[in-house]
Amino acid sequence: MPDHFKLLKTDSSTSARRGRLQTRHGTIETPIFMPVGTQGTVKAVTPVQLRDIGAQIILSNTYHLNVRPGSELIRDLGGLHKFMGWDGPILTDSGGFQVFSLAKLRDIQENGIAFQSHLDGAKLFLGPKEVMTIQKNLGSDIAMVLDECPPWPCEREMCAKAVERSYRWAKLCKEISTDNGFLAAGHHVFAIAQGSTFDDLRREAAESLAALDFPGYAVGGVSVGEPEPEMLKQVGATTPYLPADKPRYTMGLGTPPQLLKMIALGVDMFDCVMPTRVARNGLVFTPDGPINLRNEQFRTDPKPIVEGLNNYTTNFSRAYLRHLAVAGEMLSGTLLSIHNLHFYLDLMAQARAHLEVGDYGPWHKAWVERYETGLAAG
Amino acid sequence: MPDHFKLLKTDSSTSARRGRLQTRHGTIETPIFMPVGTQGTVKAVTPVQLRDIGAQIILSNTYHLNVRPGSELIRDLGGLHKFMGWDGPILTDSGGFQVFSLAKLRDIQENGIAFQSHLDGAKLFLGPKEVMTIQKNLGSDIAMVLDECPPWPCEREMCAKAVERSYRWAKLCKEISTDNGFLAAGHHVFAIAQGSTFDDLRREAAESLAALDFPGYAVGGVSVGEPEPEMLKQVGATTPYLPADKPRYTMGLGTPPQLLKMIALGVDMFDCVMPTRVARNGLVFTPDGPINLRNEQFRTDPKPIVEGLNNYTTNFSRAYLRHLAVAGEMLSGTLLSIHNLHFYLDLMAQARAHLEVGDYGPWHKAWVERYETGLAAG
Repeated sequence: MPDHFKLLKTDSSTSARRGRLQTRHGTIETPIFMPVGTQGTVKAVTPVQLRDIGAQIILSNTYHLNVRPGSELIRDLGGLHKFMGWDGPILTDSGGFQVFSLAKLRDIQENGIAFQSHLDGAKLFLGPKEVMTIQKNLGSDIAMVLDECPPWPCEREMCAKAVERSYRWAKLCKEISTDNGFLAAGHHVFAIAQGSTFDDLRREAAESLAALDFPGYAVGGVSVGEPEPEMLKQVGATTPYLPADKPRYTMGLGTPPQLLKMIALGVDMFDCVMPTRVARNGLVFTPDGPINLRNEQFRTDPKPIVEGLNNYTTNFSRAYLRHLAVAGEMLSGTLLSIHNLHFYLDLMAQARAHLEVGDYGPWHKAWVERYETGLAAG
Repeated sequence: MPDHFKLLKTDSSTSARRGRLQTRHGTIETPIFMPVGTQGTVKAVTPVQLRDIGAQIILSNTYHLNVRPGSELIRDLGGLHKFMGWDGPILTDSGGFQVFSLAKLRDIQENGIAFQSHLDGAKLFLGPKEVMTIQKNLGSDIAMVLDECPPWPCEREMCAKAVERSYRWAKLCKEISTDNGFLAAGHHVFAIAQGSTFDDLRREAAESLAALDFPGYAVGGVSVGEPEPEMLKQVGATTPYLPADKPRYTMGLGTPPQLLKMIALGVDMFDCVMPTRVARNGLVFTPDGPINLRNEQFRTDPKPIVEGLNNYTTNFSRAYLRHLAVAGEMLSGTLLSIHNLHFYLDLMAQARAHLEVGDYGPWHKAWVERYETGLAAG
């Protein structure tokens, strides 16, 4: 797929990039945040509500969908886009991370991972062949390779083995998706660079995977418990060795400032369950840090959550949204998820605009400072 | 308010009526079903989604809103319409029924009911003055009088006392809402006729309240545990003694066939939590009776819930909706509530159309027969 990614502009004072990624279901302007629809639905939000707030692409989870309702069923019903009523691009993870975090009694073998379903204990197996078949069944626009995600902290020897195994599995995934026509049909497959806290292993992982010429690359093994400086250091130790003309993705993170800091390190794509998960507990994002609408101080507050951030939730006062959250109403989850997702998507739109203007460096520093000042005061 | 209700047509073979009710927030075509928004939200559904499926008016609960967040707060924030983002008509019940069904340690006194909040045990009191003040604070388009709802079954002496007290409270409610300008401003106040299973008490309640010239009337004390024939008998014992030129409302019910049967008895307005409550458990209505989407038989079903009933949920297959319900996803509650509410609203639209054509009698009998045949087979 020649020219599926265009690097439109690079920032002068940081490694930030403005790009454009073509997929079978439309174009994605980067940097971009992807709302997470783990079980084939972004929790509490409809596809049309996602469109309304400018979602360009969503993420769904191979592990969960394969356990329930099963990828063959989704294939037989026309694929994941049709199944869940979302006609934009979909990225699916490979399921590997969930096997490590959710499944019971996992056993890492040379050709994959044997484990038990977190739902009913059924014995399952995921190898390169299985994850690529499942993602083909789903019809993913961007499929991820199977990788081994080492924990944090991690011994060097174990990490080196994980990097080696992840390389071998990535190579197999590419071969499988070449042979079965998945890549030729315009689907993308992204590789995942591991390496934990070891800079040389990070570089080795990135360079060896780059040589395999994938349509895109993820920095894996971050946001697994390490402190933020360590996370940023690992990303910074990886991106320089990934090809500049391919999109870069950090999986499963982060806070709004973390996204801006990672963009400055050259990352283009993000996903995170945080905006929707915390919304269901009454927590919403503002440019001055997050606030919990359940707090008494918002009981009579007639203002919208964030003035000027126009979405459906803006029609409602903090007082009303607090009432819904305190009363445990489902509409609270919906309206606060819409707000939080829009906050993330709008932040990415702002980042793209400042990359185009050319002042991303100072802008993102000021944005982060305001947010973190509010957070500290909050 | 002269001519606030127009009786457009009466059915030849039943007592069904086609009417039009003017309110401060727009016109309501009757017969009509009112989605229930107990705590200032129709559970899991946004106001714009309600508009999309043709909701003309919604109901909200005085008791709940007064306990939390409080009616003064809602008044200070511009009234319930603004608070919850619904600019159509709102009917509020008086809270009396909830005091009987929810509150602890209630004590019926001559000038009202003393009780404890079901949330925190706080000592509260609702009399005619209180319920009319609360509903004025909320800005209800249609306010209900305070009444005493006797249980089923009920001794005649207790029922007679409830009818007498309800009459006295209704008279007071009318005087209060006349004196404070509520009625003159175009808000409506509906009286509630009790009488349990005693035909003569039903008639006495209806006639005495009719003499007070309310803008509308409810048949109260039905759907409190009695079998359906008894419920229909009580409604049939009340409606003939209510003024023909005022809207009639049965509170808190019922199944789709019950609505059609009550329309045939001369009822114009309905509300019920059933469509949204059962939706949250996977149960959806079809012309052939309700089905539970959690059932295995829908696992691979590519059809929408009901062919030809076009709403947002029609975009999704039964297989997908089953997946959401089984996985416990919030979107299931939203999409199935949209379907069930639309099913009820569309049924009322069909009833209005058949009243206009003039074949309501045979049409509603055929509709009920198909539904009940499916239900028996189901």
